[in-house]
Amino acid sequence: MFENRERTELSDLGEFGLIEHLTKTFSNVNASSLLGVGDDAAVIDNGGDEYVLLSTDAMFEGVHFDLSFHPLKHLGYKAVSTAVSDIYAMNGQAKQILVAIALSNRFSLEAVEELYLGIKIACEKFSVDLVGGDTTASPKGLSIAVTALGTVAKNKLVRRSGAGENDLLVVSGDLGAAYMGLQILEREKKVFLEHPGAQPDLQGHEYIIGRQLRPEARLDVVKILDELGIVPSCMIDISDGLASEVHHLGIHSGCGFDIYDEKLPMDPQVISTAMDFDLNPTVVALNGGEDYELLFTVAQEHYEKIKNHPDFTIIGHATSEKNQFRLIGKSGAAFEIQAQGWQHFKG
Amino acid sequence: MFENRERTELSDLGEFGLIEHLTKTFSNVNASSLLGVGDDAAVIDNGGDEYVLLSTDAMFEGVHFDLSFHPLKHLGYKAVSTAVSDIYAMNGQAKQILVAIALSNRFSLEAVEELYLGIKIACEKFSVDLVGGDTTASPKGLSIAVTALGTVAKNKLVRRSGAGENDLLVVSGDLGAAYMGLQILEREKKVFLEHPGAQPDLQGHEYIIGRQLRPEARLDVVKILDELGIVPSCMIDISDGLASEVHHLGIHSGCGFDIYDEKLPMDPQVISTAMDFDLNPTVVALNGGEDYELLFTVAQEHYEKIKNHPDFTIIGHATSEKNQFRLIGKSGAAFEIQAQGWQHFKG
Repeated sequence: MFENRERTELSDLGEFGLIEHLTKTFSNVNASSLLGVGDDAAVIDNGGDEYVLLSTDAMFEGVHFDLSFHPLKHLGYKAVSTAVSDIYAMNGQAKQILVAIALSNRFSLEAVEELYLGIKIACEKFSVDLVGGDTTASPKGLSIAVTALGTVAKNKLVRRSGAGENDLLVVSGDLGAAYMGLQILEREKKVFLEHPGAQPDLQGHEYIIGRQLRPEARLDVVKILDELGIVPSCMIDISDGLASEVHHLGIHSGCGFDIYDEKLPMDPQVISTAMDFDLNPTVVALNGGEDYELLFTVAQEHYEKIKNHPDFTIIGHATSEKNQFRLIGKSGAAFEIQAQGWQHFKG
Repeated sequence: MFENRERTELSDLGEFGLIEHLTKTFSNVNASSLLGVGDDAAVIDNGGDEYVLLSTDAMFEGVHFDLSFHPLKHLGYKAVSTAVSDIYAMNGQAKQILVAIALSNRFSLEAVEELYLGIKIACEKFSVDLVGGDTTASPKGLSIAVTALGTVAKNKLVRRSGAGENDLLVVSGDLGAAYMGLQILEREKKVFLEHPGAQPDLQGHEYIIGRQLRPEARLDVVKILDELGIVPSCMIDISDGLASEVHHLGIHSGCGFDIYDEKLPMDPQVISTAMDFDLNPTVVALNGGEDYELLFTVAQEHYEKIKNHPDFTIIGHATSEKNQFRLIGKSGAAFEIQAQGWQHFKG
């Protein structure tokens, strides 16, 4: 159909470039469409004191997960967790989800029940209701798409834009664990394929493997911020990696960020496993992805509330240098941070 | 992982049985979750005078569409049309959509632009805003999932339940065209594969092919009903076929339906093409699917407003015989109507 026309490869744009390119000619006609493409969730204003938040995420077997080491129960949990995480990234509360699954007939009912058990456990954990969805056959493998619907008080909404100069850059939890967990799982899969019958050696890596297979969206962070009386100036969840998310915040807020290498929070398992794999732990923390922690900025006045909080680490601050993202080493040397993100369309 | 356990095939349940089975153990915790699984759209009550409506639909290449005869522009339009149709089936207005596409790297940017052009045309036609989504790689082929968000005044909400005895059963437009259009397209594809270079013979079938490739969700019907001062007692959109939808309405409303064979509205192209294919036009109208017309019931008092309306046909009425669905022939003979629906998991 397109043989005689110019052909541009999708990999030339990457995921973010592609979405921006495809949607740039669209314009909104409904006054209720307050914020569309370009944040963690869409923001809808139907009147009243709250906004409606809406986000969708799809995961495909062979692209986003590998069923040879991802138990279906954990996968169901992860799908919900990653979807509600987008609502939390707007400082909102997730309330409802829709689940659309597609699967080939290689799956039995018992397998799908496992998947839904994980979805149910996540629904209970995050206090969201499954209110609908779609179940269909797929030509190959399993895919699961979760749409999350939430609300946020109008005066509590946090976008990617809004960081001011010198605002503190804060991250919840720790970084890089999900990525290193994946490295362990892929290594053990390779061993198993080469030596069928070999038992996987996962000991000592429980934490990082758990972070990969069953990430926890940070509902608690939204509640803690509320209790502390803090509304972040901007926020995003870490799905593609700290480096990528810092770029998003900076580009949307019109600022730069300085991040201090020695401040990056990492679990000892991440550091030791990175060394085993000959990887630089800082690079893992910056580009790992799938942490589903929240990354946000707060005004300097909140420093005392944040600095010793066990759930938060101040890793840097916003600067007036637009789109300049720097990693500051112990010696004071500064390196430019590249956005990696996921490049699903490569090769 | 499941080798040693009982294995039940998905095809043993079918799509509707599967969803019901998987979601029966879920319970809601949020008061705002008014209506969940089991209608065209979920109904959310965030306060105020309106409900929020939410629905999602996914389409997979090789299951729901065939790119050898489905132009990408039409496919984008169809994906939006089928999604907003679920909002109209609740008597609501669609306002926003999220689009999640997954595609393999066989697709070029120009191809995806065509798809988005169709999405854009549909957004303009149905006055909905594209407010977000997800774009990712797929292991095989193209899939497109559209989530539609809408609103409805609380006193205008129409569910699948609510039909009363003797309520008139009404359908918009005509039936069976999308199915017969698909038969033509598949026949011409077969001819082409057997005789490469052969030109497809689509003449005289433009209407039914258009109904398959580019169905129109009936936003106009929601507006007309409002102008006529009619709130249907129950409503559904025809995606799986009249027979299947009548069952849904009857089961949810706790009634039966008598449908009159001679009243079924069909375009002459449907009748003549059905005869060419040795198909009974009535069976096509009952089981064809993908018409995206609205099927609803109204109280007898509205008979005068409906009976000669060019957009509507009264095809039968609700009865007190629970779950008895009958087709009444010209002679007065009654036949039981079987629900066919789509059986994606078969074979």
